[in-house]
Amino acid sequence: MGSTYGKIFNISTFGESHGSGIGVVIDGCPAGLEFDSDFIQQELTRRKPGQSRITTQRKEADEFEVLSGVFEGKTTGTPIALLIRNEDQRSKDYSHIAAQYRPSHADYTYQEKYGLRDYRGGGRSSARETAARVAAGAIAKTLLKGIGVRIQAYVSQVGAMRLEVPYTELDLSVTESNAVRCPDAEMAGKMFDYIDTIRKQGDSVGGVVNCVVQGAPVGWGEPVFDKLHAELGKAMLSINAVKGFEYGSGFEGVALLGSEHNDPFYLEETGQVRTRSNHSGGIQGGISNGEDIYFKVAFKPVATIMQDQESVDQHGDKAIVQGKGRHDPCVVPRAVPIVEAMAALVLADFYLRNLSAKVPG
Amino acid sequence: MGSTYGKIFNISTFGESHGSGIGVVIDGCPAGLEFDSDFIQQELTRRKPGQSRITTQRKEADEFEVLSGVFEGKTTGTPIALLIRNEDQRSKDYSHIAAQYRPSHADYTYQEKYGLRDYRGGGRSSARETAARVAAGAIAKTLLKGIGVRIQAYVSQVGAMRLEVPYTELDLSVTESNAVRCPDAEMAGKMFDYIDTIRKQGDSVGGVVNCVVQGAPVGWGEPVFDKLHAELGKAMLSINAVKGFEYGSGFEGVALLGSEHNDPFYLEETGQVRTRSNHSGGIQGGISNGEDIYFKVAFKPVATIMQDQESVDQHGDKAIVQGKGRHDPCVVPRAVPIVEAMAALVLADFYLRNLSAKVPG
Amino acid sequence: MGSTYGKIFNISTFGESHGSGIGVVIDGCPAGLEFDSDFIQQELTRRKPGQSRITTQRKEADEFEVLSGVFEGKTTGTPIALLIRNEDQRSKDYSHIAAQYRPSHADYTYQEKYGLRDYRGGGRSSARETAARVAAGAIAKTLLKGIGVRIQAYVSQVGAMRLEVPYTELDLSVTESNAVRCPDAEMAGKMFDYIDTIRKQGDSVGGVVNCVVQGAPVGWGEPVFDKLHAELGKAMLSINAVKGFEYGSGFEGVALLGSEHNDPFYLEETGQVRTRSNHSGGIQGGISNGEDIYFKVAFKPVATIMQDQESVDQHGDKAIVQGKGRHDPCVVPRAVPIVEAMAALVLADFYLRNLSAKVPG
Amino acid sequence: MGSTYGKIFNISTFGESHGSGIGVVIDGCPAGLEFDSDFIQQELTRRKPGQSRITTQRKEADEFEVLSGVFEGKTTGTPIALLIRNEDQRSKDYSHIAAQYRPSHADYTYQEKYGLRDYRGGGRSSARETAARVAAGAIAKTLLKGIGVRIQAYVSQVGAMRLEVPYTELDLSVTESNAVRCPDAEMAGKMFDYIDTIRKQGDSVGGVVNCVVQGAPVGWGEPVFDKLHAELGKAMLSINAVKGFEYGSGFEGVALLGSEHNDPFYLEETGQVRTRSNHSGGIQGGISNGEDIYFKVAFKPVATIMQDQESVDQHGDKAIVQGKGRHDPCVVPRAVPIVEAMAALVLADFYLRNLSAKVPG
Repeated sequence: MGSTYGKIFNISTFGESHGSGIGVVIDGCPAGLEFDSDFIQQELTRRKPGQSRITTQRKEADEFEVLSGVFEGKTTGTPIALLIRNEDQRSKDYSHIAAQYRPSHADYTYQEKYGLRDYRGGGRSSARETAARVAAGAIAKTLLKGIGVRIQAYVSQVGAMRLEVPYTELDLSVTESNAVRCPDAEMAGKMFDYIDTIRKQGDSVGGVVNCVVQGAPVGWGEPVFDKLHAELGKAMLSINAVKGFEYGSGFEGVALLGSEHNDPFYLEETGQVRTRSNHSGGIQGGISNGEDIYFKVAFKPVATIMQDQESVDQHGDKAIVQGKGRHDPCVVPRAVPIVEAMAALVLADFYLRNLSAKVPG
Repeated sequence: MGSTYGKIFNISTFGESHGSGIGVVIDGCPAGLEFDSDFIQQELTRRKPGQSRITTQRKEADEFEVLSGVFEGKTTGTPIALLIRNEDQRSKDYSHIAAQYRPSHADYTYQEKYGLRDYRGGGRSSARETAARVAAGAIAKTLLKGIGVRIQAYVSQVGAMRLEVPYTELDLSVTESNAVRCPDAEMAGKMFDYIDTIRKQGDSVGGVVNCVVQGAPVGWGEPVFDKLHAELGKAMLSINAVKGFEYGSGFEGVALLGSEHNDPFYLEETGQVRTRSNHSGGIQGGISNGEDIYFKVAFKPVATIMQDQESVDQHGDKAIVQGKGRHDPCVVPRAVPIVEAMAALVLADFYLRNLSAKVPG
Repeated sequence: MGSTYGKIFNISTFGESHGSGIGVVIDGCPAGLEFDSDFIQQELTRRKPGQSRITTQRKEADEFEVLSGVFEGKTTGTPIALLIRNEDQRSKDYSHIAAQYRPSHADYTYQEKYGLRDYRGGGRSSARETAARVAAGAIAKTLLKGIGVRIQAYVSQVGAMRLEVPYTELDLSVTESNAVRCPDAEMAGKMFDYIDTIRKQGDSVGGVVNCVVQGAPVGWGEPVFDKLHAELGKAMLSINAVKGFEYGSGFEGVALLGSEHNDPFYLEETGQVRTRSNHSGGIQGGISNGEDIYFKVAFKPVATIMQDQESVDQHGDKAIVQGKGRHDPCVVPRAVPIVEAMAALVLADFYLRNLSAKVPG
Repeated sequence: MGSTYGKIFNISTFGESHGSGIGVVIDGCPAGLEFDSDFIQQELTRRKPGQSRITTQRKEADEFEVLSGVFEGKTTGTPIALLIRNEDQRSKDYSHIAAQYRPSHADYTYQEKYGLRDYRGGGRSSARETAARVAAGAIAKTLLKGIGVRIQAYVSQVGAMRLEVPYTELDLSVTESNAVRCPDAEMAGKMFDYIDTIRKQGDSVGGVVNCVVQGAPVGWGEPVFDKLHAELGKAMLSINAVKGFEYGSGFEGVALLGSEHNDPFYLEETGQVRTRSNHSGGIQGGISNGEDIYFKVAFKPVATIMQDQESVDQHGDKAIVQGKGRHDPCVVPRAVPIVEAMAALVLADFYLRNLSAKVPG
């Protein structure tokens, strides 16, 4: 249970870090959507390991195969299944931790919940699963692009190094031009060096990814439980290593007064209703209001480090977990496409849900 | 759509601020649970308006009627329906804003999404709906209490006034002894005065509610999308006025190194696996690890203020929204039982979901 | 669990035979639909007890109250809650069977499943619950009527007395003109007399309800599991006392050859694709093809009879269940509006689901 | 939408007749279940084409690959993905019908619903999809077998040739000993000859599959909508070519009186509550009562025949659909394992759902 997301644009992912492969079934993608293989591959490549020396050196081509749901270059309305084979499995690397509980990993909780676990590379709990999300998210992005919705994420913080400039003053088109995926080149350089230092120490550090959605129409999101930001929050918090989510004014907005925080409405010359400020982050009452949707996602330092750590094993004995293998010293550069993918999946679902909001016609 | 939450312990709420009443149907509560009417009423009373001069003066007894699902003092396993009548409806208060869009309310987005809206007191978007959640949450709490799970929320911040002491150094049993629901009496006094000042200014201010869950066993939460903290995040973000959620080390944990952030495992004398620190917030890989679960929820300053505000109306004209009626100058004191209720609903659902994690027997 | 139906047009019913009342929450009805109270009441009246001497004499006005979701005569897009109070509860009638298991009722299975049960009149297992479905179904019918879909059910068989004429040769507009709801007046008279005879014997007898849906467009239903006829089947089989469902050629079609059974396509002068025969019952590959949808539903003789029956009780003792109280000697006349309501709920859901079948626009 | 079934034991199938392959993702199978590859293969072999001259001659090994969810021979509790490659694709066979609507196939409805379709062998609407169900069903069967539940289906009717003997008087262990899968050898022989005759005529004929479930405990099924027989009905009706479903006394029970139809309870010497007759088909109030569950499923003559048929094409022109390719003259022999698989999926889901019926412990 728990590997399925979305009410209409519904995805089910499967696969483990060191099994045959990972994949996704999308049930609910409308028919007639252009299936853009190149774009899906491009998104997977943004996420894949080994992009620079500050990401894990695991070797994966992350090429996907279409198993179903596409015919003559278009989606058919029936389930789209995509499969990404695992190549660099190296199961031997993990035999030494078969019985050990790595600190702040899912080893202990999986073992207790299920009575057994695939210990190779974290099995199902590995962030490798997010490749399937990125593939599905690319299809959701294609759907959204057709109605002018654009989703852009970027790294705003690494460790304590924070980019204080709001997104409205950044050129997000340059995000992809550096390995950190921070749209401020100078800051990106500092962040890169810092991550590289951490890497050499065999340690890891956290970071923050910001995301901006532009072009979403008014009306996406549902009252009460399935508010747009509630689903965005769930989607982001479901990404490995995420510890927090905020949208619009977020935690800082708490200290404002209502008279400062409220976003006054005004009319554009076109007659379009707009707000003068956007503390609401583009969402009011859980429903998009046509302004930019923006939010932040906090990632902890990844748990895999190249240092010895105190722990216990499955047999109830003390253990020392040794730092071996490959790891990402800071996950946020590779998390950027994952955050975008999850945002796309949430928005595509609300787009389709909203088609039945009013009596049709 | 969107008024339903929970896979097994499933609730559907209904009702508007100024309709006949609000209520909830719970489908999936196990049979044989003691139905504790007094406790439900007590929880509703914690949430109800008019508790002190720093909460809205709307008069509501918030008494509930059991429509179904209870027989001879126990739940029957079939849907439990509870109804809370609206008493102090005063629809006339709202006629002046029938066509106006109140800034940072849901008026505009509902109107656009649905083509019409119940403008009386916000209709369905009113926080009055949360009474239904509190009633359902009380039943979930009863279920959880039976296995030793305790949920305690409290106010940790009002405006910029923040209680820096961690929950482990607080006496949470005194939370209910003051109107602010802050377990530090001195801080509570300052917060009360500050909120009262804001109230007199006809303004509002935000705050933060912390929540601690003790006694949850290992194993609650599901891999990948339905991680325990992802569902907690969604549930909290679905509460009116919430702008952010973090658990464990949260946004601050970003700046730590992995070697600092990881929680080493050790064995208690009982043989129980424990962690020396708890940056994980009791959740690893999306699954509870037996440690305390703790998280924070950020609430914005409520949008209703007693001041004139620039806006537009439904006809495309400029409008001045006048401050009238009743409002909560700061929502967090009344939000404490709501946060607890939503946490209980999430946990009860995972408790029941976890019954099928392993082959039974 | 199990009291919820529908993916988009989603209903949750609640209530027991002898509790406060029964009701329904509809989450997913589009906004802007005219809320036709008179029509809902009319449908409830078609189902209510005491219509003639061949139905149970329980006295229920079956008047409903709108608790939410309607504003100024239209649906708002948020949950519609309807409540029907129980009036003629007579709980005392049932005290003698508190511990007994009535043959072919749900007493034993509920007791074993839940460990307790509301024994008064069958509690949740009572067909009284279907009043909530009829109310919700009336709203679904209103939605469907707006696009020209008409649903008509009628009694085609009582005991062994079967109306052999196909629906295409019947005048379904006269169905409501007799107490049996059989559109053939002569047959209706015979059926009435037969049921009345059975009633006097303190016995009961089964029957069949046929249903015809006209005006449904091509495209409703989903591939594989959620085929239109599969959902219709589930919906019908979920009605109390139903033992079988067939559509189109049904069980009799088994004996035909493919060359006889296949429905050849032809073009109408309008260019509309039609089929020359309709063994498919308006559904091909699980999706409506624009022809009439028709199906049959088999109802067993109701289990409540006015005769003594061998049984056991909850304490593991032999027992004689005595025939007391009130009952329907044949359930099909009152089942006609229930079958229609369930068909409407299924179709309304597929109507809304189908809005996202293709890339919009 | 629509390719997913089950609330807890949840399956999503994917794939088309002539795409890369078909498969299934099972999310919700409990951890620790022995993964019996041989048994899965055996079940697939029971369903695969080319078993005898009365089944289609399409060549498929129907071997499956495990993509995820299994570790060291056991299920891990995370999604199990299985893939069956298509081998004998022969897409060229279908080019002549690319634009034609085959009578009583899903060509027209898919084209209208989706605006395009994979016309090769019916694409997603092909019964080839059921191989994925059979694989998933084999896992469900393994789960059920562990608690003593046995599911046996058999052919009871081909065309008008009907086996009138009740299942209680048959030796179901011999079902697999003949190509028709009818447990009466003499009747099986006649059916075989009849089907073979039909095959030579290039025609097809319908049939009926009966199914018996033994060993199910009391308590499976949920009140109101998700009654055990309602879900069984949906599951069976979702199988290609099914036109009807009945359980227990079914359509014939209609003509009985309540005094004849009711199943009197009695006590076995062990204290077990039993019923003297079983018109209820092992289900009362939608919940299993511990008696044998039995039901019948009607299959139409398959639409593919080797004869010319009147039709139209996608361009709005008249067309003659020519009989070419390979087909099953009668689908019921191969439907036997499919019926069993769907029954297993329904029952496994209710087994797991029932774990939360009462307050645990």
